[in-house]
Amino acid sequence: MSRNPFLLLTNDDGIGAPGLLALSDELQKVGDTVIVAPSSERSAVGHAITLSDPLRVWPFHRNGAFYGYAVNGTPADCVKIAYWAILDRKPDVVISGINLGSNTGINTIYSGTVSAATEGAILGIPSFAVSLTTFQNPDFHYSAKFAGKMTRHLLEKGLPPGIYLNVNVPACPENEIQGVSVTRQGLALFEEKFDKRIDPHGRIYYWLTGQKIDKEKAIEVDDGAIQAKMVSVTPVHYDLTRYDFLETLKGWKLEP
Amino acid sequence: MSRNPFLLLTNDDGIGAPGLLALSDELQKVGDTVIVAPSSERSAVGHAITLSDPLRVWPFHRNGAFYGYAVNGTPADCVKIAYWAILDRKPDVVISGINLGSNTGINTIYSGTVSAATEGAILGIPSFAVSLTTFQNPDFHYSAKFAGKMTRHLLEKGLPPGIYLNVNVPACPENEIQGVSVTRQGLALFEEKFDKRIDPHGRIYYWLTGQKIDKEKAIEVDDGAIQAKMVSVTPVHYDLTRYDFLETLKGWKLEP
Repeated sequence: MSRNPFLLLTNDDGIGAPGLLALSDELQKVGDTVIVAPSSERSAVGHAITLSDPLRVWPFHRNGAFYGYAVNGTPADCVKIAYWAILDRKPDVVISGINLGSNTGINTIYSGTVSAATEGAILGIPSFAVSLTTFQNPDFHYSAKFAGKMTRHLLEKGLPPGIYLNVNVPACPENEIQGVSVTRQGLALFEEKFDKRIDPHGRIYYWLTGQKIDKEKAIEVDDGAIQAKMVSVTPVHYDLTRYDFLETLKGWKLEP
Repeated sequence: MSRNPFLLLTNDDGIGAPGLLALSDELQKVGDTVIVAPSSERSAVGHAITLSDPLRVWPFHRNGAFYGYAVNGTPADCVKIAYWAILDRKPDVVISGINLGSNTGINTIYSGTVSAATEGAILGIPSFAVSLTTFQNPDFHYSAKFAGKMTRHLLEKGLPPGIYLNVNVPACPENEIQGVSVTRQGLALFEEKFDKRIDPHGRIYYWLTGQKIDKEKAIEVDDGAIQAKMVSVTPVHYDLTRYDFLETLKGWKLEP
């Protein structure tokens, strides 16, 4: 008996986010979908997991119908608890998004959206994160369509163990999209600012702000592709080892 | 005029943690130290940064004397705000620890301790994380001494851009330590369990528990080194790109 593909959807903007709804609407054309997503926004939680607090799961309704499971945890928690405690079938693909705002360059390591795909990859499931590079007036139409197409690719081809994909879609009308670029993660640095303020009680506090400096412009780099109005697809993994430095370090005479 | 080395210390167990105190006591022999650390425990926050809440900084005293700056943020926040808003001098080395419990294998990506070193590396500062692989009756003596030695190595040799070190020290008496192994990050998976319980109000909640399966035993792997009672030193970086998959992905015909 052939079964429909089974797709696990999550995000870090929270289960009520419009990007997740757009993704869900599109992916229902590709397979059976289930949503397990944070109950509230968890942006920039990075690859956090919740160990010191208990997790709760409850059904979330939209327009009077069951829409998905809300979890009081992070995107990584959602994928873990979906796999180990909620679902009775292993998902064929994990899709995280559609995030509001890019997850490119060094931001990739901070991204809750990406961390859900990381967790999918750890579980041996082909996974990708998808982000739309704007916070204003988002039109998810094209990015959702691309996510549907990418899901079909993953269902057909799979991914080698430990590899997953980080997809960023430029926020421009579909007819202005210049194509797709397979990219590496940009390494441009941030110029951070801490905006120092005084609260109504006379105490100092800080807001973190910052902007990328020396953004890399080549279309072989995630940020460069976005600037060229191309969809950026970066293959990533969770092995942080810097293999080319192992031999140097062995020469350091670290023995006690 | 020659100046003492300037060392920034942080952790994710919180500014009051004994591992940070042991680190501070030892590193004062190496240079001028400053502590900027989370005001409370932030374990498993991963590489989180705080964007949606303001950050506050306040002096933290120990035995009536100034000890360091407490921040209501994550380890990554602490390094950022130290560099951009608190310190008037760039640190020569960032040291994060001494963490209670190992940060090896896939846990590396969840680790708040490691994320502080990541942030140091992003800022172009030689950085390392140091963890002691036990939660019980920790004796930080040897791990602190090793951190001092590693700091001297970094002051002398530096590190190439983007590379930082993840150090794990086995919890055994110093005379049982079998040496130092330069390692790669282990990739053994976790068997997760969600312990399902009912709260006093009749509602279901879950605790995440889990244990590593198929732990890798070679001393060239972080977990294997620890099992062999060796100090594990893993060179890591924050470029998640899986370069060897770029060409395969280019063959996927992803064009719209």
